[in-house]
Amino acid sequence: MVDVSSIVITGIRGIPEVKEGDNVAALILEAASNQGFTLANGDIVVVTSKIISKAEGRMVNLNDVEPSPIALRFSKSLNMDPKKVEVILSEARRVVRMVKGLVIAETRQGFVCANGGVDQSNVKPGLLALLPKNPDRSARRIVRDLKRKAGVDVAVVVTDTFGRPWREGHTNVAVGVAGLIPLRSYVGLKDDFGFELKVTNIAVADEIASAAELVMGKLERVPVAVVRGYRYEAGRGSARRLVRKVSRDLFR
Amino acid sequence: MVDVSSIVITGIRGIPEVKEGDNVAALILEAASNQGFTLANGDIVVVTSKIISKAEGRMVNLNDVEPSPIALRFSKSLNMDPKKVEVILSEARRVVRMVKGLVIAETRQGFVCANGGVDQSNVKPGLLALLPKNPDRSARRIVRDLKRKAGVDVAVVVTDTFGRPWREGHTNVAVGVAGLIPLRSYVGLKDDFGFELKVTNIAVADEIASAAELVMGKLERVPVAVVRGYRYEAGRGSARRLVRKVSRDLFR
Repeated sequence: MVDVSSIVITGIRGIPEVKEGDNVAALILEAASNQGFTLANGDIVVVTSKIISKAEGRMVNLNDVEPSPIALRFSKSLNMDPKKVEVILSEARRVVRMVKGLVIAETRQGFVCANGGVDQSNVKPGLLALLPKNPDRSARRIVRDLKRKAGVDVAVVVTDTFGRPWREGHTNVAVGVAGLIPLRSYVGLKDDFGFELKVTNIAVADEIASAAELVMGKLERVPVAVVRGYRYEAGRGSARRLVRKVSRDLFR
Repeated sequence: MVDVSSIVITGIRGIPEVKEGDNVAALILEAASNQGFTLANGDIVVVTSKIISKAEGRMVNLNDVEPSPIALRFSKSLNMDPKKVEVILSEARRVVRMVKGLVIAETRQGFVCANGGVDQSNVKPGLLALLPKNPDRSARRIVRDLKRKAGVDVAVVVTDTFGRPWREGHTNVAVGVAGLIPLRSYVGLKDDFGFELKVTNIAVADEIASAAELVMGKLERVPVAVVRGYRYEAGRGSARRLVRKVSRDLFR
């Protein structure tokens, strides 16, 4: 019997509909406790950005939105609600592409994704959820609150579901990180044959986000998952490190 | 105590250096057995393409390569070994971009990745590993052999490590699939608020590949991992479904 390291990913169920002002860490601890799960040092708590947006009041009521003339004009070619277009544009730093029903935009946080991260799923009708203003800060708050309330040292990854070029389907990626270094560096390391590795950075925070999606799903009401057993590099961390500088983007 | 579903990812260690003609399924079963791990129905066996390339003899000795005039010319601006350029070009269907030290190409299998999937890491000096000719077929063979040798019904995902646009760092993705449907469809499904989901497909095979990378690493000699507890949609499957048609690629 060899020493084997396994990673266990557990979904945290039973988190109620989140309201503005709710403490996300408290909700996680209560739901975990209800299912007999106790957080431990070194765990990675993966949280969908949606419940953080709700807790932070990053919701827009479409009734309160006054579309600008530009949004009105775009909405015709996009065949979208002009109020929704207005919200998307107000979240965008730059539009990458517009096609019928879809705006691909770079968000204020630097992420390139559909509709600038503005999303209507799993929210009350008439509302739109925006991405948390600063998902790294949201992640740091949860790390701090979990330490205060439960005495555990964990890392937090905040996720959203993004499409990507070249490949079909969406995957979960990290939009906020706290307590772990999101890229694992292999710079200068050599394989067993003495060959220096050309792949220099693995985006482990995105891989953690993707792994967690497997227990979260989209309709199962599992907005939180805990990844246990992965020996991450501890550190302040930031999902901004996962945003590729345009000058370095050879794939586009 | 609520019913909680967890996913467990276990690395399979102790697989020896793979030689041409080796049976990958047999190597996996032997190494698993040595660490006291038994495959079960419903497991997903994740295998790095590298060991499959070795078993299938998809290795090129640089000494045997005669660079063409085109490869010779490109090698100067690329500042790369002309023999390596020759091999990369011979694996490519289309070049997306060339910069110093790097060719981004669409491979014969349809994948867009660095150096057409040709890789020098974790192989003997002087050799290059090519991607398996048909990684889906390689995956099907392992599914079939594991059934024959161990009587288990599993799915197999063959992985490679790719860069991607917009985001820093590489992640593991699925280049071959057998026994599971690689995209989970939410088409027409509604959330708790009756809102029809806009995200229609989740690339679960890529998420499985990424999850497995967390136990595999690049230098730990863990070329195989088993994902247990994920209820995938069984079916023939194919990683070709993960390749986005250019006409549908709005992100580029």
